[in-house]
Amino acid sequence: MFSFEEIRKAEERIRPYIVKTPLVRLVNLDPYLHCEVYAKLENLQLTGAFKLRGALNKILSLSEEQLKKGVVCASSGNHGKALAYSAKKLGIPATVVIPTTAAPIKVEAIKALGAEVVQCDVTERFRVAEEVCAEKGAVLVPPYNDELVMAGQGTAGLEIAEQQPDLDAVIVPVSGGGLIGGVSEAIKNAAPGMKVYGAEPAVLPRYSASLAAGERVQVPAVKTVADALVSNMPGEKCFPVVQKNVDQVFDVAEEYVLKGMKLLLTEGKIFAEPSSCIGIGAVLQGLVPVEEGQKICFLISGGSAALSQIRQLEEVQIP
Amino acid sequence: MFSFEEIRKAEERIRPYIVKTPLVRLVNLDPYLHCEVYAKLENLQLTGAFKLRGALNKILSLSEEQLKKGVVCASSGNHGKALAYSAKKLGIPATVVIPTTAAPIKVEAIKALGAEVVQCDVTERFRVAEEVCAEKGAVLVPPYNDELVMAGQGTAGLEIAEQQPDLDAVIVPVSGGGLIGGVSEAIKNAAPGMKVYGAEPAVLPRYSASLAAGERVQVPAVKTVADALVSNMPGEKCFPVVQKNVDQVFDVAEEYVLKGMKLLLTEGKIFAEPSSCIGIGAVLQGLVPVEEGQKICFLISGGSAALSQIRQLEEVQIP
Repeated sequence: MFSFEEIRKAEERIRPYIVKTPLVRLVNLDPYLHCEVYAKLENLQLTGAFKLRGALNKILSLSEEQLKKGVVCASSGNHGKALAYSAKKLGIPATVVIPTTAAPIKVEAIKALGAEVVQCDVTERFRVAEEVCAEKGAVLVPPYNDELVMAGQGTAGLEIAEQQPDLDAVIVPVSGGGLIGGVSEAIKNAAPGMKVYGAEPAVLPRYSASLAAGERVQVPAVKTVADALVSNMPGEKCFPVVQKNVDQVFDVAEEYVLKGMKLLLTEGKIFAEPSSCIGIGAVLQGLVPVEEGQKICFLISGGSAALSQIRQLEEVQIP
Repeated sequence: MFSFEEIRKAEERIRPYIVKTPLVRLVNLDPYLHCEVYAKLENLQLTGAFKLRGALNKILSLSEEQLKKGVVCASSGNHGKALAYSAKKLGIPATVVIPTTAAPIKVEAIKALGAEVVQCDVTERFRVAEEVCAEKGAVLVPPYNDELVMAGQGTAGLEIAEQQPDLDAVIVPVSGGGLIGGVSEAIKNAAPGMKVYGAEPAVLPRYSASLAAGERVQVPAVKTVADALVSNMPGEKCFPVVQKNVDQVFDVAEEYVLKGMKLLLTEGKIFAEPSSCIGIGAVLQGLVPVEEGQKICFLISGGSAALSQIRQLEEVQIP
């Protein structure tokens, strides 16, 4: 069911509700990354992240009957915000299941968008979301492991291929694999000469381990500064797409994620969450085969960072 | 000598050396500013500010003979960096006169670009710059009060008119008047329906006072958080252009400059120096006649801010 054609359909479906985010040239990063630097700014997307594309495509594919009963997800982050925003925009009920450990500011942001919030222990969140669905007859909107969600997220790749068709490579942050699955399918069809690389936290190497093993591997669940990239196993619907399309996935050290965030902010003048800066970290760490003169685009996936997180960057050294 | 035609010539002259900076839609600022928000990102320009456009246009207009003897300016900020960069690019000598009070990091940045640095007391800097010119037979490149500098800076306005011709208004930070002089001349010719507003620190109301008086007025020299907007009198070549073209100049309170900086960073995801955020401050303060649905573009003039300056924003309240 997932295909390039589905991404094209998703693009038409969600177009009235999203921003075609800018793809900008960041010339002041060139001396640090030794290539021609571009960035696709999904942190300028409505709700501040690419997640809106997937949630909207799923929701806009539901029947009238389903829409009336509403949508549900388990997320305290960008996906929860995207679901709440989409539901408000379409005038349908939404429930977001949030761990009791989530920051109160995130809970308030989702409530402010009109969604019902159910709080529970972090280990219970997926079970509770299923329960809410059963009770209300509502539809669960997964954050990545869903063909329609992946197709929606892939529309960012369609835009990249259209906005800058002469790119040599795009580097995408990787967690469960929805974004890189969708984006790689879009790019390998719309601009086949462009390489697609992934960047994941070295402490959570779920994709490099799975690609090496030839099957999905679960890695230990640990913390990372890239706090939006915490899946510890590839999504089963995402893995074969990544396996087919993606040229390489790089495992980035924690300190290089922060170096990437600092460089993007101080020289690139773009404020993004640590997870979004992992691709820049990969190049700073010397992992990516880039050459002078090559046009490399970093997909900046979201901007959910607090000002107070910038303090930790003051002491970070670049490179 | 200053005219729209000169701005067109400047554009051709400097094109190979500058970045056509992106003009982006910042949809997440709309709920705060009650209009459709756009930003022209001169903080993504080479050397991090619009100043490069003016310095380059002046230098590229010199004769072979003059180029050999080199160029001089008095500035520790963006103009000094622009001059040093331009001279390096063209392989000519440059001297930058910097007050002894300037931060060492700024001195080092200019030295790193290969310019000779002369340090002196802040009150002596213009006299010293003249002396260096006389001694070397070099040409002084003023930061704003010069037709060629103003024409070069105006190329940012040409780009705005071409990139987003349906804007209702552009809001430009104001100091001596080079940027708003050039930009307003470009816009009033290339897109006559577009309003051009200026925003200056309320503590240094040199343009609102001069426009009210019908002649250039000197105001007391005081400090402002908008530390790139410190001229205390309009440039004599800039004033008549601003008088002719600019629809209104707003005097923005210090606290609103910082509110603007915080909003641009937290919701707009763009990091700019306080001076560049003064236009957003003007709208937050309720000074600008904007209406829902109007397309308003903020000229983000530069990005010379240190990470440590972000700390002061943590306690700032928006709006």
